[in-house]
Amino acid sequence: MSKPLRVTVWNEFHHEKTNKDIKKLYPKGMHEQIAQYLRGLEGVEARTATLDEPEHGLTDEVLAATDVLTWWGHMAHHEVRDEIVDKVQQRVLEGMGLIVLHSGHYSKIFRKLMGTSCSLKWREIGERERLWVIEPGHPIVEGLEKEYFEIPAVEMYGERFDIPAPDTLVLISWFQGGEVFRSGCCYHRGKGKVFYFRPGHESLPIYYHEDVLRIIGNACRWAAPLCSAPAITWDNVQPLEEVRK
Amino acid sequence: MSKPLRVTVWNEFHHEKTNKDIKKLYPKGMHEQIAQYLRGLEGVEARTATLDEPEHGLTDEVLAATDVLTWWGHMAHHEVRDEIVDKVQQRVLEGMGLIVLHSGHYSKIFRKLMGTSCSLKWREIGERERLWVIEPGHPIVEGLEKEYFEIPAVEMYGERFDIPAPDTLVLISWFQGGEVFRSGCCYHRGKGKVFYFRPGHESLPIYYHEDVLRIIGNACRWAAPLCSAPAITWDNVQPLEEVRK
Amino acid sequence: MSKPLRVTVWNEFHHEKTNKDIKKLYPKGMHEQIAQYLRGLEGVEARTATLDEPEHGLTDEVLAATDVLTWWGHMAHHEVRDEIVDKVQQRVLEGMGLIVLHSGHYSKIFRKLMGTSCSLKWREIGERERLWVIEPGHPIVEGLEKEYFEIPAVEMYGERFDIPAPDTLVLISWFQGGEVFRSGCCYHRGKGKVFYFRPGHESLPIYYHEDVLRIIGNACRWAAPLCSAPAITWDNVQPLEEVRK
Amino acid sequence: MSKPLRVTVWNEFHHEKTNKDIKKLYPKGMHEQIAQYLRGLEGVEARTATLDEPEHGLTDEVLAATDVLTWWGHMAHHEVRDEIVDKVQQRVLEGMGLIVLHSGHYSKIFRKLMGTSCSLKWREIGERERLWVIEPGHPIVEGLEKEYFEIPAVEMYGERFDIPAPDTLVLISWFQGGEVFRSGCCYHRGKGKVFYFRPGHESLPIYYHEDVLRIIGNACRWAAPLCSAPAITWDNVQPLEEVRK
Repeated sequence: MSKPLRVTVWNEFHHEKTNKDIKKLYPKGMHEQIAQYLRGLEGVEARTATLDEPEHGLTDEVLAATDVLTWWGHMAHHEVRDEIVDKVQQRVLEGMGLIVLHSGHYSKIFRKLMGTSCSLKWREIGERERLWVIEPGHPIVEGLEKEYFEIPAVEMYGERFDIPAPDTLVLISWFQGGEVFRSGCCYHRGKGKVFYFRPGHESLPIYYHEDVLRIIGNACRWAAPLCSAPAITWDNVQPLEEVRK
Repeated sequence: MSKPLRVTVWNEFHHEKTNKDIKKLYPKGMHEQIAQYLRGLEGVEARTATLDEPEHGLTDEVLAATDVLTWWGHMAHHEVRDEIVDKVQQRVLEGMGLIVLHSGHYSKIFRKLMGTSCSLKWREIGERERLWVIEPGHPIVEGLEKEYFEIPAVEMYGERFDIPAPDTLVLISWFQGGEVFRSGCCYHRGKGKVFYFRPGHESLPIYYHEDVLRIIGNACRWAAPLCSAPAITWDNVQPLEEVRK
Repeated sequence: MSKPLRVTVWNEFHHEKTNKDIKKLYPKGMHEQIAQYLRGLEGVEARTATLDEPEHGLTDEVLAATDVLTWWGHMAHHEVRDEIVDKVQQRVLEGMGLIVLHSGHYSKIFRKLMGTSCSLKWREIGERERLWVIEPGHPIVEGLEKEYFEIPAVEMYGERFDIPAPDTLVLISWFQGGEVFRSGCCYHRGKGKVFYFRPGHESLPIYYHEDVLRIIGNACRWAAPLCSAPAITWDNVQPLEEVRK
Repeated sequence: MSKPLRVTVWNEFHHEKTNKDIKKLYPKGMHEQIAQYLRGLEGVEARTATLDEPEHGLTDEVLAATDVLTWWGHMAHHEVRDEIVDKVQQRVLEGMGLIVLHSGHYSKIFRKLMGTSCSLKWREIGERERLWVIEPGHPIVEGLEKEYFEIPAVEMYGERFDIPAPDTLVLISWFQGGEVFRSGCCYHRGKGKVFYFRPGHESLPIYYHEDVLRIIGNACRWAAPLCSAPAITWDNVQPLEEVRK
């Protein structure tokens, strides 16, 4: 437990470069805002990676040295190269944690791991969201004071969210305009753990929200790979017991 | 409920054409053996489709007229064209049932819907398997007399089976050589229902086994699409409530 | 499938006798309103039973002849005798379906089957509820036209609802006052199937709502026991395989 | 994280006092053997409590100072007083972890929390058991070298195990005599986490088995309550949003 948790915060990082208001909100990009929060947590190391870097910043070396990867993408999902997506999937199945944020629901990696369309409803009028804790003993809600928290202005995501039913449903959102959403969804996939977390938007200060950051931090800890997971044998095997007919 | 359930039984249908012993066992192919059983069930219609037919027998017309598709493949998974796989996935998400049999665990369509490697252990020495009912109130075990059934000689599949935890686990297998396996696994994916069922092998008379056939029949009924499912709206939507700030 | 589904609609039936307005709304009691709907469904027979009848109307004969029991109680949960609750639990574990309605969340039978407090938040100001379909391929939502339905004035129930996570979550409610709720929850318990369904209130015409009734009817069909479930052996058993050391 | 995890190891502690051979095997009782192991883990404190102590050793003070309770009982389940069982249940719902061992499947507390009979098959001929890891990324299997471990001679427990489907199924057992069993089952109940773990027997040295002990230790860590869980409000609440009609 004394080894640091190594998080790589991945961001598409286009909006922040092409839109003045967004740049003002996240001058170094959303990834730096999230990484800075994580760096303040005991035992956590955070680096960043972005789409326009070589191999999207996700070289074999980086992936091998990543315990948990967080993912934010939106307008350029299609620019993410398939072979990088395959490598990320492989790493998740081997044990790397993956935290998918907001519009990352439509990323290649999330859709690939879910096997469904991951479609949903959306609306961008800056309405209020209230996220309710559904599983109050889950480590991802550690340290929340209340059983809900509010975000004053958000892009709405509404059900039907076309995902497999989560292994554990931690949060459900209420929206002013009349919708609900499964906003905190835990999955085991292979040896890896995946958490989808709804909040976030390029043009709103959501990654400055204390409870949103707290949950991202908790999720990184929850999704950490085992220090030592049992080795698995695949394919053709010899019997462990004598087989007589 | 008066409309017939339209099942399409898909088979790779290579083994039965290239191996004499297998041909003797399943003279018209495993698909015909399964389809013949299904045709004997009240309210069920069954057609077949195979890999070497144009579009693998899965034209848009066939898929549109299929309520439940059963899938057996083994040596030629890679020959299944990706655009057909994409269409099948789309139809499942729209509500078509899918029953994946035995070595179909490694089919493109199953791996795509699961999002994991679907790897497992295997061994082919003709050992005994005993399938235990874990959820005895589930419609898929309707009509089984006992809480387990045995198959005298099988190809073994052993855990770790790299799948998402099923929504409902119905059967667990015991093998003589010392392994266990989640042999009956139910999933909701989109509006569709998916059932993975382990038994089956090209060179063994497993699709003549009364309980195996019974479960395939039950699974087809369980996986039937709704007669009338709620319509879903995706993407950008107007608020259902007045939003005031 | 040709045997009728035998439903017993249980109601506390106190409110309707002691309050004029409620009596006006449900002149024969909520149970008769629900039973009348069920009797209109093909292949369904419905009888009723109420608290003040001998053995609460749930004699051994009635329970033995009940495939699915629906339960509405509120002010007199404590008057339900423990030995009757034990018998109902036993019948559920043997395969009888149980549909728990609205304030039945606090009934002895539901709490006993869940193992938790089944506590929740509530408020009675006649606000609007919108129930969203979360699992659109589930038979309980068969025939709903839209992916949500609204009830104009309800008693609100809000999360945290202290229940085990449902095996399948079918509906989530949105409330005008800012809460959410898991309103349609499926469970397997023993050989029986249990469905909790939130809508209903003694002083509101909720059991006249077309979609509410439809879901109750669908839930009865879903919760039906198997025609022939596998027999289970408990306790001390002989080995099925030779055990050598 | 710097606060120690306070485990109370509860044992019926009758067998060890009444049977010479068992006394020889566990001279201070199974509880001391388990507690001694736990005391060797970093950050873990373990005390013990037994049936014949006043209030079964589970006074309000002890329960209040217990983060995780482990439970072993067998011949004297009925001697556990109902009011103590109620207090333990209440503490679990408030967040205390509970690890139920072997014949504890039939304890009042486990049956109460599960809501089912918790019946199973059993046989005592000293056969071999092999426990397979089904969820290799789960923290409860941290540090296991292989994907299975064997216990050379056990009392067999076989399916059907009449429990609710676990939230996460971590281990499945294979038995020489032909049965299988869900041997490691995780549940959320209220704010508490519950783990059922099959191995253990009064007359066999199972609590000296390295992997069995390791899993008990891991389960205690997994079941630890949150340091600070969100506060929950029950019952009648005011709206959080303006409700206009």
